[in-house]
Amino acid sequence: MMNKALAEFIGTFVLVVFGCGAVVFSSDVVGVLGIAIAFGLAIVAMAYGIGSVSGCHVNPAVSLGVLIAGRMTPRDFGIYVIAQCLGAIVGAAFLAAVVSGKLGGYDVAVDGLGQNGWGEGYGGGYGMGAAFLFEVVATFIFLVVILGSTHASSPAGFAGLAIGLTLAAIHIIGIPVTGVSVNPARSLGPALFVGGQAISQLWLFIVAPLIGAALAGGVYRFGWLQSKL
Amino acid sequence: MMNKALAEFIGTFVLVVFGCGAVVFSSDVVGVLGIAIAFGLAIVAMAYGIGSVSGCHVNPAVSLGVLIAGRMTPRDFGIYVIAQCLGAIVGAAFLAAVVSGKLGGYDVAVDGLGQNGWGEGYGGGYGMGAAFLFEVVATFIFLVVILGSTHASSPAGFAGLAIGLTLAAIHIIGIPVTGVSVNPARSLGPALFVGGQAISQLWLFIVAPLIGAALAGGVYRFGWLQSKL
Amino acid sequence: MMNKALAEFIGTFVLVVFGCGAVVFSSDVVGVLGIAIAFGLAIVAMAYGIGSVSGCHVNPAVSLGVLIAGRMTPRDFGIYVIAQCLGAIVGAAFLAAVVSGKLGGYDVAVDGLGQNGWGEGYGGGYGMGAAFLFEVVATFIFLVVILGSTHASSPAGFAGLAIGLTLAAIHIIGIPVTGVSVNPARSLGPALFVGGQAISQLWLFIVAPLIGAALAGGVYRFGWLQSKL
Amino acid sequence: MMNKALAEFIGTFVLVVFGCGAVVFSSDVVGVLGIAIAFGLAIVAMAYGIGSVSGCHVNPAVSLGVLIAGRMTPRDFGIYVIAQCLGAIVGAAFLAAVVSGKLGGYDVAVDGLGQNGWGEGYGGGYGMGAAFLFEVVATFIFLVVILGSTHASSPAGFAGLAIGLTLAAIHIIGIPVTGVSVNPARSLGPALFVGGQAISQLWLFIVAPLIGAALAGGVYRFGWLQSKL
Repeated sequence: MMNKALAEFIGTFVLVVFGCGAVVFSSDVVGVLGIAIAFGLAIVAMAYGIGSVSGCHVNPAVSLGVLIAGRMTPRDFGIYVIAQCLGAIVGAAFLAAVVSGKLGGYDVAVDGLGQNGWGEGYGGGYGMGAAFLFEVVATFIFLVVILGSTHASSPAGFAGLAIGLTLAAIHIIGIPVTGVSVNPARSLGPALFVGGQAISQLWLFIVAPLIGAALAGGVYRFGWLQSKL
Repeated sequence: MMNKALAEFIGTFVLVVFGCGAVVFSSDVVGVLGIAIAFGLAIVAMAYGIGSVSGCHVNPAVSLGVLIAGRMTPRDFGIYVIAQCLGAIVGAAFLAAVVSGKLGGYDVAVDGLGQNGWGEGYGGGYGMGAAFLFEVVATFIFLVVILGSTHASSPAGFAGLAIGLTLAAIHIIGIPVTGVSVNPARSLGPALFVGGQAISQLWLFIVAPLIGAALAGGVYRFGWLQSKL
Repeated sequence: MMNKALAEFIGTFVLVVFGCGAVVFSSDVVGVLGIAIAFGLAIVAMAYGIGSVSGCHVNPAVSLGVLIAGRMTPRDFGIYVIAQCLGAIVGAAFLAAVVSGKLGGYDVAVDGLGQNGWGEGYGGGYGMGAAFLFEVVATFIFLVVILGSTHASSPAGFAGLAIGLTLAAIHIIGIPVTGVSVNPARSLGPALFVGGQAISQLWLFIVAPLIGAALAGGVYRFGWLQSKL
Repeated sequence: MMNKALAEFIGTFVLVVFGCGAVVFSSDVVGVLGIAIAFGLAIVAMAYGIGSVSGCHVNPAVSLGVLIAGRMTPRDFGIYVIAQCLGAIVGAAFLAAVVSGKLGGYDVAVDGLGQNGWGEGYGGGYGMGAAFLFEVVATFIFLVVILGSTHASSPAGFAGLAIGLTLAAIHIIGIPVTGVSVNPARSLGPALFVGGQAISQLWLFIVAPLIGAALAGGVYRFGWLQSKL
C-alpha cells in the first residue's frame, strides 16, 4: 500500500507541476492549447509511469467514481485521496519555489498559480451556474472514458493515452470557463498558495467534480455502459 | 441494444461538446488547430470509452459505410442514427446552456454554435461546389481509415487513435472550407439552435457525407482494399 | 497486386490532400505547426487505413529504402512508384479543384499548392546546398524510423504512429528550409500544377530523398542497426 | 555492442537535430509549443526506430538512472555515454552546417543553436537556483516515467510514446526556465559550437540532470515504485 500511496503522491504532484506549471511558466508563449496539452500529457506520463502500481487515479473524483463502480475498497479510497491532496500541495509548492527565482519578480497571490475560478476577471467570464454545470458534465465524460477504457473489454494498454488525451480536450474547451478542475486535489494545491478568491470558490471544484464522477460511477455500477465480455 | 444506443448517444454528445465546444468557448484562444485537435480527441476519447460497447460510430455516415460494407444490420443502423442525432442535439443544448452563462452575453443565433456552412462570410469563403466536393472526398477518406483500421488484418487497438487523428487532420484542412461536417448528426445539432443559414445549408452536410461514406463502404464491400488474412 | 496499387494510390493521394491541403486552405490559420501535424497525421491515417494492404509506403524514397533493405521485389517497387506518383498528382488536382471554388479567387501558379523549393523568396531563404543536405539527412532519419519500427524486433502495431509523428517532427524543422519533401511523389504532384520554379527545382526533391533513403536501406541491409531476434 | 553504440549515436543525433533544429530553423514560426513537440517526437521516433537495438537512452542521465536501477552494466554505461555525446555533437554540427546556408546569414555564436542557459536575457529570466531545482525535479520525473513504463508490469510497446510525450510536456513548462536539458549530451552539443555563456553554464546541465536521474534510479532500485508482478 505504501507503493500505491507514493505512486498517487508523485502522480498528482506531476499533474500539478505539468498542468499548472504550463500556466505559471509558459502561458504567454504556449497559450491555452499548450496548457491543455501539458495537462493531458501529465496523465499520459503518469498512466504509463506509475499506472501499474496504483492505477494512476491522481484525482479524488476519479477514485470516487472507481469506488462507486465497485472497483476499489473504501479504505484504499481514503489513502488515495490523502496521497493525492498531498501530492497536489507539494506540486504547487514546487511551482511557487521555482517561480520565486524569476528575476523580474512573481507574486503568487497576484500572478496566480494555475488556480481554478469563475466570474468577472477569470478566463472568459462565465457565471457560477455555467461553471458548475460544466464541471459536472466534464467530470462525467472524463469518468466515462476512464471506466470504459480500463474495462476488460477495451484494448489493453491504450487507456493511458485515451484518458490523457481526453483531459487535454476538456482543457481546450474548459479553460475559458473554469480553468478546468474535474479534480478537487488539482484545485486544492494552487488555491492554498494563492488564497483569496481561489479559496472562496474552492467548494465548487470539490462538489461538482465529485457529483459528475459519482454519476458516471453509477452508470457503470448498473452496467448501462458495459459490453458483454 | 439499449447499451449500444446509450453509448452512441453519449459518444455523439461528446463529439459535439468537445468539437463545437472548442469553437464556442475557445476559438479565440486555441484557433483552428485547437478546434481540430478537440474534434479528433473526442473520437479518441469515445473510441476507447464506449468503443467496446457500440463500436463508436457516433456518426450516421460512418454507420452507413459500415452498413454498406456489410458489417452491420439495417435495424441496428436505424437505432444508431436516432441515438446519434439525439446525442448531437443534446450536446448542442448543453453548449447553449453553458454559454448562456457568459457574463458578457452570447447570442447563439449571431455568435454561432460551431455550425457548418459555406459561401461569403463563412470561413475562407468557398462556394457550394467546393464545399460539396470537399465533404464527399473527406468523408470517403475518413471511412477508408475507419473500415481499414478496424479490419481484422490491422493491428488491434490502434483504430481509435488512427480514426481520431484522421478527423483532426481533416479539420486542419477543412475548417476554412465548410467547418468540416463529414457527419450529418454533428451538423444537425448546432443548426437546430442557430437556425437561419445553418438550417438552409444543412442538406449538403447530410447528402455529401452520406455519398462519400457509401462510396468507401462499396470499396470495402467489393474487397478492393482488403488484404488477405 | 491491384489491391496494393490502389492502396498506394489512395495513400499518396491522402498525404498530398492532408499535407499540401493544410498549406493551401489553412496555412494562415494553423501555421507551420498545423501543416506539420497534417503531414504527420496523413501517415498515421494511412498506416492504419491501408497499411495492412500495401505496407503504406506512399513514397518512392521509402519504397527504394525498403527495396535496398531487401524487403521488397523490384517488380513491386515499380508498381508502387507508379501508383504513388499518380496518387500525388490526383491529390494535387483535387486541391486545385476545391481551391478554384474560393470566392475571393486563387491562382495556383501564384498562390501555390504546397510545392517544395529553396532560395530567395521560399520559406526562410536557404541555399541549394543547405536544401540538399537537409533532404538527404531528413530522409535518412525517416527511413531509419520506418525500417526500424517495422522490424520484427519492434513492438507490433506502433510503427504507424512512430513514422507519422516522425514526419510531423521533420516538417516542424524543415518547412522553413525546403517545405520538406523526403518524398519525390509528394513534390511531383503540386509541381506539375504550379509550374515555374517548382518544376525547375524538382530534381533536388527526387535525387536527395532517394540518396538518403538508399543510405538507410544499406545500413539495414548490412545489419548495422538490427537487434538480434 | 557496435550496433548499440551506433543506435545511441544516431538517436542522440536525431534528438539534437529535431529539438534544437526546431529552435534554430523554426522558433519564429512554431513557437515554444512546436519546439516542445519536436523534442518529444524525436524520442518517439527513436524509441521505435532504434529502441529494440539499444533501448534508446540517448541521454547520459537516463543511462545513469538505468545503471543505478540495476538494469545496465557499468561498461555499457561508458560506451553509451560516449556514443551519446558524439551523436549530440555531430547533430549540432549538422544544424550549424545547414544554417550556414541561410541566405540572410546566421551567426551561431549570436543567434544560438538551441543551447541551454539561465539568467537575464535567457528565456523568461530565471535565476540559477530556480534552474537547478527545475532540472533536478524535471529529470527525476522523466526517469520515473522511463523506469516505470519500461518495467515488465507496464503494457508492452507504449513506453516510447509515454516517454516522448513526457519530454514534450517538460519542454512546454521548462523552456522559459532553462530551455530544458534533463540531458547532459543534449546540452553539450550546441554549447561547443555556441561557446561563451553556453559553456560557462554547461556544468549545471550536467550536474542537475545526473542528480535527478540518480534519485529516480534509487527509488526503483529500492523497489519503492514497483508493482508486484
